[in-house]
Amino acid sequence: MTGWYLSLLLHALMNSKTRKERLVVIGGCAAGMSAASKAKRLRPGMEVIAVEKSPHVSYSACGIPYFVSDLVRDADELVSVTPDEFRTRRGIDVRVMHDVVAIAPGKRQVTAVDVRGGAEICLAYDQLLISVGGCPRIPADAGLSGSNVFSIQTLQDGIAIKGFIDTHQPKRAVIIGAGYIGMEMAEACRTRGLETAVIEQKDQILGGFEAEVSKKVLSELARQQVFVHTGATVTQTHTEAARVTSLTLTNGETLSCCLVLVCAGVTPNTALAKMAGVRLGSTGAIAVDWKMRTCANNIYAAGDCVEVKNLVSGRPDYIPLGHTANKQGRVAGENIGGGTARFRGVVGTSVFKVFDLEVARTGLGCAQANRLGFDARSVTVLSGEKAAYFPRASQISTTVIFDQRSGRLLGAQMVGSAGVSKRIDVFAAALLNKMDLEAMTALDLSYAPPFAPVWDPVLVAVNVARGKLRR
Amino acid sequence: MTGWYLSLLLHALMNSKTRKERLVVIGGCAAGMSAASKAKRLRPGMEVIAVEKSPHVSYSACGIPYFVSDLVRDADELVSVTPDEFRTRRGIDVRVMHDVVAIAPGKRQVTAVDVRGGAEICLAYDQLLISVGGCPRIPADAGLSGSNVFSIQTLQDGIAIKGFIDTHQPKRAVIIGAGYIGMEMAEACRTRGLETAVIEQKDQILGGFEAEVSKKVLSELARQQVFVHTGATVTQTHTEAARVTSLTLTNGETLSCCLVLVCAGVTPNTALAKMAGVRLGSTGAIAVDWKMRTCANNIYAAGDCVEVKNLVSGRPDYIPLGHTANKQGRVAGENIGGGTARFRGVVGTSVFKVFDLEVARTGLGCAQANRLGFDARSVTVLSGEKAAYFPRASQISTTVIFDQRSGRLLGAQMVGSAGVSKRIDVFAAALLNKMDLEAMTALDLSYAPPFAPVWDPVLVAVNVARGKLRR
Repeated sequence: MTGWYLSLLLHALMNSKTRKERLVVIGGCAAGMSAASKAKRLRPGMEVIAVEKSPHVSYSACGIPYFVSDLVRDADELVSVTPDEFRTRRGIDVRVMHDVVAIAPGKRQVTAVDVRGGAEICLAYDQLLISVGGCPRIPADAGLSGSNVFSIQTLQDGIAIKGFIDTHQPKRAVIIGAGYIGMEMAEACRTRGLETAVIEQKDQILGGFEAEVSKKVLSELARQQVFVHTGATVTQTHTEAARVTSLTLTNGETLSCCLVLVCAGVTPNTALAKMAGVRLGSTGAIAVDWKMRTCANNIYAAGDCVEVKNLVSGRPDYIPLGHTANKQGRVAGENIGGGTARFRGVVGTSVFKVFDLEVARTGLGCAQANRLGFDARSVTVLSGEKAAYFPRASQISTTVIFDQRSGRLLGAQMVGSAGVSKRIDVFAAALLNKMDLEAMTALDLSYAPPFAPVWDPVLVAVNVARGKLRR
Repeated sequence: MTGWYLSLLLHALMNSKTRKERLVVIGGCAAGMSAASKAKRLRPGMEVIAVEKSPHVSYSACGIPYFVSDLVRDADELVSVTPDEFRTRRGIDVRVMHDVVAIAPGKRQVTAVDVRGGAEICLAYDQLLISVGGCPRIPADAGLSGSNVFSIQTLQDGIAIKGFIDTHQPKRAVIIGAGYIGMEMAEACRTRGLETAVIEQKDQILGGFEAEVSKKVLSELARQQVFVHTGATVTQTHTEAARVTSLTLTNGETLSCCLVLVCAGVTPNTALAKMAGVRLGSTGAIAVDWKMRTCANNIYAAGDCVEVKNLVSGRPDYIPLGHTANKQGRVAGENIGGGTARFRGVVGTSVFKVFDLEVARTGLGCAQANRLGFDARSVTVLSGEKAAYFPRASQISTTVIFDQRSGRLLGAQMVGSAGVSKRIDVFAAALLNKMDLEAMTALDLSYAPPFAPVWDPVLVAVNVARGKLRR
């Protein structure tokens, strides 16, 4: 017996010396490669292997609309670091074109399949990061499939769409979904000269934005000859030679199309997590703690597959965004690498450009806030984004959402042709600090005629909102 | 005796009925007219009289450089509300061209002289606001006076300078003082085609900015052929026909000039306040409380003549700026009008444009912070202001000043060709909330390729600074 124990101990000791500690990262986009890089930098002795289904890692998915529009010429420009550079410069082993099909947490092992040939590899891990992102939501109402139907999620999708436009010179695009990616793709399609229609199942475009914002975007879309069908879903698709040639809507209208882009949002990709016994949260995405650890030992998760704490509502939320994924990846990597970092949550800040408008939001919408139990009210104020006498001074519409009882700021939304993007960040900073309107009047914001009016739109809106508080 | 008392009582009663309560405002620029407007709106029954030495009230002094450069054609464009409009639309009695020469707090009365004719008027007040601004600081070292020597403070100054340039077509301008107004005027002069030199007595341009920022501005000035003489003062002026034709500097150099602009800052105008027995603070400017009340009964003060609380250092400071004056005026007006508003202080945010650069600061400088007892350190980080693959993506240099012991943010300075102005406001919001670097990593800042890289320059700099904290 003693000999057997000794042999076991020896084996364990040798193993611990011969095999380095290993981090396996599943999914090589924003969160995954941020984590891999940070962990490797902090713990150079650790072996880091990233497994990615597609041919690309570490690219800007948010840049795809600008690649399709041809503002960005080459797909390589969207790539921050290539698999080769990860290997040679950062010492990270990147296995592209490998699809992880199984996690065995008991054995601390993942199984991946080479999507090119079907060969299977098994990788043992000491630490595992699940950063597999989201799955494009495909509306179930009609059989939306065909060689001219694309979702916009991976760089491969972007390359396929641009290739299709370049090769087939389509005349008419239909975009399913009027969220921010739908808006960006509508602009890209118009820029490429396509007649463009957007179909949105809700009665209003831009779910999550207040009606004032949606209206302004709607009129910009009209000005840019984008045809918008709200309250409509596809009831029937007509296909010829494997291509969707027209779509019939619930309102009876039939739209002919040469290209269909499905921009109906994403759901968290949780198949592997479920397989590994990782707990999902109330939103359906993977639940993680401040260190980005899942409930399973040595398994972290980050990016569009995890839920976040909404720091305004205090509740779990699912808000998949690139900058959040990057932050989460960095935090996961820092903790895996032996540091101590925390991802506390988000306040829900986002911005997008659609033609000549900048559109941004942060925090809660008014209806959402009321559903959460706040006594929410909103005001919308139009004000100049620079001194009125300055050439090309335009107006920003600012909506402030606040709690009438406490005076606390709950959210803000802005739309205008300039000066929106970084102004929303002032509201975001205020939300993180749980400021009320009274406290916000003390914000000492920069002023010079080329950049702002003497009363910045943020302060103008805050002052108007403060005047509406119940006293 | 009873009869006498009764008569006195009757007189007092009649007076209180026949004469409305009256607010007299001394100085009709930003603070004064904001206060007048707000007080009148809140208390329409109050008589409001604003007395202003110059012919103009309620104009943008900060717009003067753009009026001189001719970007703004007409001086009227800088005027928000004319004296006539104040009278007819807002019911405010504006007396321009009247210089208040005395305040008698005991009698609650001010005496003003019509600068056109010398006639004197006496005005009784119930509430008084002193908003007389600052006095341009004229370097004492040489007799800087002549018909071609101007300071840049009032709209009259701006009109005189533009008139001088239009009429006399000067070839060479010398600007005394390399603060932000000196920079704006240097740009204005170059735009008008003048050879331009700037003389600064300190060794570095842009006092209050870190050396990294000054260097970047210096190289922009060189690129724009503005000749800068630092560590230099004027030892001798040469005058012909009442015009300064050349200046000799401490370094022995002689600069010929056709136009001299004195941009050496301002000192608080406190002559009247002293006369009224109003207490000055440690900075030499008028001391006020949160309601903008001075120590004297019924006398408020606001704008460039008062000191402010620096909310980062917690100490009194003198930071005369247009947006602060506007806020203070509004607060004074709200309190005079029966409301309750507070002006808590500033964190010291400012921004200016000089040619192709945006330059901004907030909070304390590093040396200043160390003088105040902090263990301050700074880092400077260069990062993109939008996605690197985006056309015309430029770089921002961000300097973060922080306390090494506590990790608290103390200040930030930014310089770049775009995207600076409203980013500094995120730091300003963080300073107001006394955030430390760790807390700032949770800032949820907006991201989309046209507006920001996935790691906003604010967060990049905060992360680098956080890495430098003593652990």
